[in-house]
Amino acid sequence: MSQKEKAKTGIEPTRRENFQEWYQGAVHAGELAEHAPVRGCMVIKPWGYALWENIQKILDARFKATGHQNAYFPLLIPLSFLEKEAKHVEGFATECAVVTHHRLEKGKKGELVPAGPLEEPLIVRPTSEMMIGSLFSKWIQSYRDLPILLNQWANVVRWEMRPRLFLRTAEFLWQEGHTAHASEKEALEETLRMLDLYVDFVQNTLAIPVISGEKTERERFPGAVATYTLEAMMGDGKALQCGTSHFLGQNFSKAQEIQFRDPLGNVQHAWTTSWGLTTRLIGALVMVHGDDDGLRLPPKIASAHVVLLPIIHKEESRAEVLSFCHKLAQGLNAMRYREGPLIAIVDERDVRGGEKTWSWIKKGIPIRIEIGPRDMEGDRFPIYRRDLPHREAKVFSRAEILSHIHEELDGIQANLFQQAVAFREAHIKKIKTSEEFVAFFKAEEKGFVVAPWAEDSQLEEKIKEDFGSTIRCLLTEEEKKCIFTGRPSRKRAVFAKAY
Amino acid sequence: MSQKEKAKTGIEPTRRENFQEWYQGAVHAGELAEHAPVRGCMVIKPWGYALWENIQKILDARFKATGHQNAYFPLLIPLSFLEKEAKHVEGFATECAVVTHHRLEKGKKGELVPAGPLEEPLIVRPTSEMMIGSLFSKWIQSYRDLPILLNQWANVVRWEMRPRLFLRTAEFLWQEGHTAHASEKEALEETLRMLDLYVDFVQNTLAIPVISGEKTERERFPGAVATYTLEAMMGDGKALQCGTSHFLGQNFSKAQEIQFRDPLGNVQHAWTTSWGLTTRLIGALVMVHGDDDGLRLPPKIASAHVVLLPIIHKEESRAEVLSFCHKLAQGLNAMRYREGPLIAIVDERDVRGGEKTWSWIKKGIPIRIEIGPRDMEGDRFPIYRRDLPHREAKVFSRAEILSHIHEELDGIQANLFQQAVAFREAHIKKIKTSEEFVAFFKAEEKGFVVAPWAEDSQLEEKIKEDFGSTIRCLLTEEEKKCIFTGRPSRKRAVFAKAY
Repeated sequence: MSQKEKAKTGIEPTRRENFQEWYQGAVHAGELAEHAPVRGCMVIKPWGYALWENIQKILDARFKATGHQNAYFPLLIPLSFLEKEAKHVEGFATECAVVTHHRLEKGKKGELVPAGPLEEPLIVRPTSEMMIGSLFSKWIQSYRDLPILLNQWANVVRWEMRPRLFLRTAEFLWQEGHTAHASEKEALEETLRMLDLYVDFVQNTLAIPVISGEKTERERFPGAVATYTLEAMMGDGKALQCGTSHFLGQNFSKAQEIQFRDPLGNVQHAWTTSWGLTTRLIGALVMVHGDDDGLRLPPKIASAHVVLLPIIHKEESRAEVLSFCHKLAQGLNAMRYREGPLIAIVDERDVRGGEKTWSWIKKGIPIRIEIGPRDMEGDRFPIYRRDLPHREAKVFSRAEILSHIHEELDGIQANLFQQAVAFREAHIKKIKTSEEFVAFFKAEEKGFVVAPWAEDSQLEEKIKEDFGSTIRCLLTEEEKKCIFTGRPSRKRAVFAKAY
Repeated sequence: MSQKEKAKTGIEPTRRENFQEWYQGAVHAGELAEHAPVRGCMVIKPWGYALWENIQKILDARFKATGHQNAYFPLLIPLSFLEKEAKHVEGFATECAVVTHHRLEKGKKGELVPAGPLEEPLIVRPTSEMMIGSLFSKWIQSYRDLPILLNQWANVVRWEMRPRLFLRTAEFLWQEGHTAHASEKEALEETLRMLDLYVDFVQNTLAIPVISGEKTERERFPGAVATYTLEAMMGDGKALQCGTSHFLGQNFSKAQEIQFRDPLGNVQHAWTTSWGLTTRLIGALVMVHGDDDGLRLPPKIASAHVVLLPIIHKEESRAEVLSFCHKLAQGLNAMRYREGPLIAIVDERDVRGGEKTWSWIKKGIPIRIEIGPRDMEGDRFPIYRRDLPHREAKVFSRAEILSHIHEELDGIQANLFQQAVAFREAHIKKIKTSEEFVAFFKAEEKGFVVAPWAEDSQLEEKIKEDFGSTIRCLLTEEEKKCIFTGRPSRKRAVFAKAY
């Protein structure tokens, strides 16, 4: 198909042509983020940061409703802290930003050079288990001090050689929950409570369907007893981990001496958990809901719901059209949508109509309404939903816009979720033999494979080497035979290539 | 006075005995923060972090209402960026955390050692002017791209050898606004708009009276054309800078090539501003409102307004008392106070009554209500306001608690502000001669001095050396003669020792 025959899309290339390049294009055109002038880092632009603010606002309220409090712990961690938990070191100490000096001085040519070497180097936190654990060991003395339920909103750094906006950057934003409990049962309940909270948020607010379950030993958080995950299918069939909740058992409390006196006076180690979710979720929003014209934001997370586009052909109608738009926006902005205010914008920018419309399509705003003198005269306004074809407009009167807006937004939210579910169902394959498994990955079919699996780390490693495919999580169902070893198992492994 | 004769206070020593130690004690006993196990850093505990969350919530809404958007810029800044603006380097490049490696490896004894040296060292941001400027130069092409009005909530690091909780720590939290404009007038208006917004917030929400004005050249932000500040008097008479707003002129836009094409097609340099406010404000809240028993939180910023203290002498009354408390808390929590919800807590902890009461006095909660069976029977409950003597209770019926709570909270807010104003007025001295000036500082009188002043950087430096006193800001009044040089000037300098 020549360029001329091909329908023009908002983002080039299309997803089918090159998903990775489409992703970069969609993130840029949608004004979410861009690469920073520091290797591996990103700049989150206002339209992207507003998504993170909404994620924060909604999750934060839920964390607090489940008894958690926020606190803030240091960015810098002494090297010696990392050395305390052996597996944790292996997992985290490899790629990180190391601070070795605390001053700059002028060199011979007037250039700045590091000075004031530190006695002990510090690393920029890749996660805060070791820092928070050291404080827990100080704060916790008695069973009366438990549980401690804390959360932190923070930036973390994990060095990345091949950065990708939102998905893999040296610095990213996240929340990390850290809790300590008097019993194993309570800590496990907490781990699963937060997993469920994540699942509910990602599915019902972000409209992203997920599969949740336990990680294999190989994929577990370094130092954890069990890691639970939620995995979503992106538009190219690959998996993206949308959050994790770790049951740390007594591993960290033993490494860090987090001990308490129980009601009988015996000294015990506390049971701890941690759970986190990051700005990666914004990448997931793009890759699950985006189409060849750019972003499509689910209304429950969008930072603006409606854009009003004044159509002004003649200068003399300007004042009247703008005044109408602002009054309508006022009416909409006085309403609420779900957990926050309904937000409508009037786009008065001095740019061509087509360019203006396309900028909002690419930014994925749920609803566009065009408003010109003729529409005002007839009290009939074309309403464009971002989840429907661009030329397909519903026509509402002014009163209907106000009375139907919730229904339309809910319709978009539901439709985006349904489309994502349908896509996933079409690309998830239950597999019964190892031949089928090999054929699936050799053919580079896209999607997830679910197969009976008896845990075997060596085989898991080999599958990763041969096919680039990893076990995203384990599900528990009725007993079947593992497709590779023939051993009976109630486990089903979900295999996929992953971000 | 022997220990026995002295009235026992919540914090020891008292403010008069040793203000610095009292401060540390008040911050600890109030559960706001503690020193971290990393040199120079702090851990902000939930009761302290909640104050920061409220500061964020209220300011963020006002920033947005004045047209600003949030964005996020990288933590790490290449050394070469710093070298672009000469004065800026001098001001900031001295004490900072320098990242020189991006990996850790195991050394010979199994210990972790820095590896993967970076070609160009990175510094952990002490402020983001240079980073954001480099992006502005990319984003701004035409006058149509202006103004850009951004804000960032972030952590920054400035190495500190003698850390003090909230006041001076290597890492602290802040917001930094960065804007670019097409004209000098607009940029200056923005600078002053944000100064006014800060003044309004600090006075009316934090109940801290401030003096605002311009900084002298010596005290100016490195690279700025003008720095405006708001200065408050702490409980020991010293000054604390509560926020600054900088008019950067074209200095940064010239250093970073932030240029735009004006409507006539001419290329011009943009005019920029920046303004910021930090977690230091929490230190100010402690030092302005705290008394010898600990914190006193202004209701408009407190994260909880009322604590209900169940008095249970006999086990059989427990259920009834707790049920009453929870119902009353429900009634209070259904109300709003100012810009957020009214928050009431029931303290059910299993600790002695006296200890429980004192923990809330030290934490500075505005109102305590004791609830026991006898109070319930008589429908008369003692209400203790933190701003009044501890034994002085008003007595309200249940209905009166609900109907009078706003009035009481507003009363506390107003009283704390009035007390701070009265203290400041008592310790601010208008001075007419250089002899009086010298006498004031030689006598180590506490407080501020205001004196006619013709700007003179050398003299300013000498005064700092001789008396440890600096010019906090300049005010403009009718012409008088400078008390040192005799030169006529409309400036009044506010001198004080400062944090």
